[in-house]
Amino acid sequence: MQFLSDNAAAVHPAVWQAMKDVDAADAPYDGDRASAALDDAMAALFGKEVAVLWVATGTAANCLALSTMVPPHGGVACHREAHIEMDEGGAPGFYLHGAKLLLCEGDHAKVTPATLAATLDPIRDDVHQVQPHALSITQASEYGCVYSPGELAALDAECGKRGLAFHMDGARFANAVAFANRPPAEVAGPVDALSFGFVKNGGMSAEAIVFFDPALADVARYRRKRAGHLQSKGRYLAAQILAMLEKDIWLHNAAAANGAAAEIASACAERLLHPVQANEVFMACTAQEREALRAQGFSFYDWGEGAARFVTAWNSRAEDAQALARAIGGL
Amino acid sequence: MQFLSDNAAAVHPAVWQAMKDVDAADAPYDGDRASAALDDAMAALFGKEVAVLWVATGTAANCLALSTMVPPHGGVACHREAHIEMDEGGAPGFYLHGAKLLLCEGDHAKVTPATLAATLDPIRDDVHQVQPHALSITQASEYGCVYSPGELAALDAECGKRGLAFHMDGARFANAVAFANRPPAEVAGPVDALSFGFVKNGGMSAEAIVFFDPALADVARYRRKRAGHLQSKGRYLAAQILAMLEKDIWLHNAAAANGAAAEIASACAERLLHPVQANEVFMACTAQEREALRAQGFSFYDWGEGAARFVTAWNSRAEDAQALARAIGGL
Amino acid sequence: MQFLSDNAAAVHPAVWQAMKDVDAADAPYDGDRASAALDDAMAALFGKEVAVLWVATGTAANCLALSTMVPPHGGVACHREAHIEMDEGGAPGFYLHGAKLLLCEGDHAKVTPATLAATLDPIRDDVHQVQPHALSITQASEYGCVYSPGELAALDAECGKRGLAFHMDGARFANAVAFANRPPAEVAGPVDALSFGFVKNGGMSAEAIVFFDPALADVARYRRKRAGHLQSKGRYLAAQILAMLEKDIWLHNAAAANGAAAEIASACAERLLHPVQANEVFMACTAQEREALRAQGFSFYDWGEGAARFVTAWNSRAEDAQALARAIGGL
Amino acid sequence: MQFLSDNAAAVHPAVWQAMKDVDAADAPYDGDRASAALDDAMAALFGKEVAVLWVATGTAANCLALSTMVPPHGGVACHREAHIEMDEGGAPGFYLHGAKLLLCEGDHAKVTPATLAATLDPIRDDVHQVQPHALSITQASEYGCVYSPGELAALDAECGKRGLAFHMDGARFANAVAFANRPPAEVAGPVDALSFGFVKNGGMSAEAIVFFDPALADVARYRRKRAGHLQSKGRYLAAQILAMLEKDIWLHNAAAANGAAAEIASACAERLLHPVQANEVFMACTAQEREALRAQGFSFYDWGEGAARFVTAWNSRAEDAQALARAIGGL
Repeated sequence: MQFLSDNAAAVHPAVWQAMKDVDAADAPYDGDRASAALDDAMAALFGKEVAVLWVATGTAANCLALSTMVPPHGGVACHREAHIEMDEGGAPGFYLHGAKLLLCEGDHAKVTPATLAATLDPIRDDVHQVQPHALSITQASEYGCVYSPGELAALDAECGKRGLAFHMDGARFANAVAFANRPPAEVAGPVDALSFGFVKNGGMSAEAIVFFDPALADVARYRRKRAGHLQSKGRYLAAQILAMLEKDIWLHNAAAANGAAAEIASACAERLLHPVQANEVFMACTAQEREALRAQGFSFYDWGEGAARFVTAWNSRAEDAQALARAIGGL
Repeated sequence: MQFLSDNAAAVHPAVWQAMKDVDAADAPYDGDRASAALDDAMAALFGKEVAVLWVATGTAANCLALSTMVPPHGGVACHREAHIEMDEGGAPGFYLHGAKLLLCEGDHAKVTPATLAATLDPIRDDVHQVQPHALSITQASEYGCVYSPGELAALDAECGKRGLAFHMDGARFANAVAFANRPPAEVAGPVDALSFGFVKNGGMSAEAIVFFDPALADVARYRRKRAGHLQSKGRYLAAQILAMLEKDIWLHNAAAANGAAAEIASACAERLLHPVQANEVFMACTAQEREALRAQGFSFYDWGEGAARFVTAWNSRAEDAQALARAIGGL
Repeated sequence: MQFLSDNAAAVHPAVWQAMKDVDAADAPYDGDRASAALDDAMAALFGKEVAVLWVATGTAANCLALSTMVPPHGGVACHREAHIEMDEGGAPGFYLHGAKLLLCEGDHAKVTPATLAATLDPIRDDVHQVQPHALSITQASEYGCVYSPGELAALDAECGKRGLAFHMDGARFANAVAFANRPPAEVAGPVDALSFGFVKNGGMSAEAIVFFDPALADVARYRRKRAGHLQSKGRYLAAQILAMLEKDIWLHNAAAANGAAAEIASACAERLLHPVQANEVFMACTAQEREALRAQGFSFYDWGEGAARFVTAWNSRAEDAQALARAIGGL
Repeated sequence: MQFLSDNAAAVHPAVWQAMKDVDAADAPYDGDRASAALDDAMAALFGKEVAVLWVATGTAANCLALSTMVPPHGGVACHREAHIEMDEGGAPGFYLHGAKLLLCEGDHAKVTPATLAATLDPIRDDVHQVQPHALSITQASEYGCVYSPGELAALDAECGKRGLAFHMDGARFANAVAFANRPPAEVAGPVDALSFGFVKNGGMSAEAIVFFDPALADVARYRRKRAGHLQSKGRYLAAQILAMLEKDIWLHNAAAANGAAAEIASACAERLLHPVQANEVFMACTAQEREALRAQGFSFYDWGEGAARFVTAWNSRAEDAQALARAIGGL
């Protein structure tokens, strides 16, 4: 029973089918009909005009989006635990040509106006220090927590005041929407670009960069090719995204993963390091307890010395989650 | 009847099947069993130890390979018509952090020792000029021509003399092997790394970088992640490559494409701009003649004012190629 | 008798004096009074508002200026013989983060609207090819030739049509002005930024980047610091430039160098490879003839197999130039 | 009475004289006799073979040195308060092509084996996290404190164990040597390269990068040109360094600055934030106290809310330091 991550789960049948459906040769790169349909599909979802690019990974999505907002001599404010800081192998340094990440504190891996200010206010406005040009946040956060519309608006006000572009890493955006139970546009808030993740949620190899400012997308198209991310058979990526959007599979899948996490969380409410709002459970437990769980067939990651991380996926089996909940209850 | 390019053709059924076969969750990134099997599969093909990385595009393959060979202050010798110079949107400048392409002449888009020397000899060995660190050639070349083992050995001798690493862009390496009818190791010759293409030859989204020097692969792994090219469900890429290697599908597909090109070429031997050795036909013809062909239902690209380019694919239908040959004969 | 280059000549006495005059501690970096005086001094010279930054080298001046005009995924059109292409050790690749130089032909190392079009027109406007964002020319050119106001206007029209920024490498701008005998603003023409050289013309270590668009200067200030070119005792650089501008030393020095070159050129009019308009003479001559000149005590560079290059400096002695002219006459 | 910084002080008379002495034209760039003499002069000082490059700024010295040690995908461990992190406008990101600074804690801005381990040990050795390739420390530190030979040896042992290159930012190396009263080689310890500062210590515009590993210097030469830091009249920079080394002016100047700082420190021993070992005094004091001092004619920087920073220079007048000491005593 695997709770290591959602990032290697199987591909949803509807995604497979959609990929097969575009198998016949079409125009290469993003000239095909599926790629052409992305803008409208996402515009319908968000209720406003957008420009959408597919890429194969969340790292590429985040860094390409940011590369349209931040000059090489600039900086990006983000949480100290942000994926772009911790887990992208220095990709922001590569894609932004040496621009700097300016690290903010914040509970549950969420930036607040106050923690943003604590990082940015001490930066002297002179050439000796790297100036911020953008804020990047993660929705849901790296600890599985969701920014509310009010929190997003407050951060947006800070961005406006400081002249910062606003980016959202939505590797688990679907889980955030499923949790919030609000229209996607409210969960994305007023960001300039959203890395909308599908791979962890039933896709195979396609993430969407949703640009709410089409001028940024025009730059991103050149940057995508330059990064070797313009696949010649792009139709197979576009088809994945379209399939996920159709019939709200993205939302159903995320709700399923969230539900499994909630099941597990219900068994360890008093041990939780972070509220469980998406599909990740961070639970305090001893090494001995972790051993006991593993002995019962559960696989998961240690989270430092005194905790464990369980991640559920779109296809986590209810009985597995229930079994884990029981096992935790029995510790 | 489409002869525009081979880069958007359908995916081979065996590739589809292999992808389905790895659908069950496995370790993420390249920790899965399919990825782990790549080194041995390619070692068997080339008859020597290799280290293999999958990536989604040929541009990424070429540039990642070169990034292990060339420092940011260095240069890469290549043909003036090389894909890395002409068609990768500046990706070498990005991946190599501003290193420079040093352009060589040569018939049929092939570099020779003499044309290499003509470009490199005038470079003063001082800090005011960018020094060469690698040679990159394309096999088959951008004009569909194949380097012979002797030609490769001669270039390798130049590389040795000049202290250059040696890279091969093998976007159509399979077509070169099918033409040469020699073991892949002879067609790759003594290069340090080969970008071995599968996408144009029946794959969906996987190219292999084959490092004959494993130390370079260790660097490339970091660079791949940093470029956002380490897909979390890498098993679907590895499976594509393995499927193509198994039962020599890569070779059969390439032979089929080459055969279709030969069929077309046979109808216009006296009009050919380049020998037809792989799956591309460059034919002198007037605008009027091109119009006549298009009127008969053939699609293809103009090649400048006075020529046309026909590209065949692994699944080009014999009857289509024959029809085109007849139509050309009737001009 | 040295005619190798003007780039290592002694420093003009007025420059020495001005440097001594700012020896007392002042604000660091460019906060000092001399640095503050640069904008006005240059505005007076050019008859319009400008923003001026000092840097230590022409390479830094050129590349910093261009870095404000060209994104990393863009390109810079320039002559195939331009200093930025031939002699800056790949600095444009570094400062522009991998942007590409797009090389143009043109007699006497001068770009024309036609040669610019020949390079840029074939670039497809798609993401597979690097798009031009700026034109950089050299005034006087690398072969010592001067663009006329009409030629500059014609290039500017092309830039306007193509959406290109316009940069001038003026390592020998003073010599161009001295030749043209026109106001500096006419010799600079309609460029967005000028690298105005002083080092070859009697300065020690200060070049000026003159931005006619102040917004670009604001970016350049960050880039200068980031490149390690913001010297803490910047007043010694500013003082050099101010000293050269005062009493028109820059112009007198250039006129002197031009005069010496003209003296030499007068002895070999029929052998000249390029018109002698500034302070460089490119003369056809055999290896034997070069040997004969060297035997008489003249030092200079070979220019390929069949030519010699003589460069005069602000302090070349008239009798040396006359002696060389006589020696050439006696060949 | 100025105690703002040492970075804009006047130039030492011997430096002026040495610059005048090389005024006659010599070979350009670093081909002149003064530049050629640097290796031997520094080898004599350090008692071992070295390769020396001049550059105009400490930022360029640090970043060029590090660029020879760290690949673009790597990281540099340094103190959180290091100049390369805090005051170089992102230059490490530029020169190292996006490599990352890995920040360490440590009293008095000094890294220790324990604080280094605290930063590096949590980094997983996989491609998702940036791996350290070098350690950079500052001698004397940003808070004016000096690493002892034992401390350097302990750090070097860590570097050896972890496979890190070792760089020393010696913007105030002279002050460290004057404090330690030991041979320079002991104060530099076992580093691979030292940025040896002269500008703050009586020079005008020349810092030395001293490479104890000559192979690194060979790379640095290309990088220096590429960064626009190879001045054509390099002899004026080399002359500054030679003049400072001759007759131990560098050491006398540093001792004088240190002495003035000690004088000030003696008046506020109980208020010191850091031991005063070089030429910087960090003193706890209220805003009111700072106002009182300024009212008496002393200029200096606030250091946060509750402290002041006084920096002495090679030419700080003894009577000024005494006056400041008295004024502090009278608070």
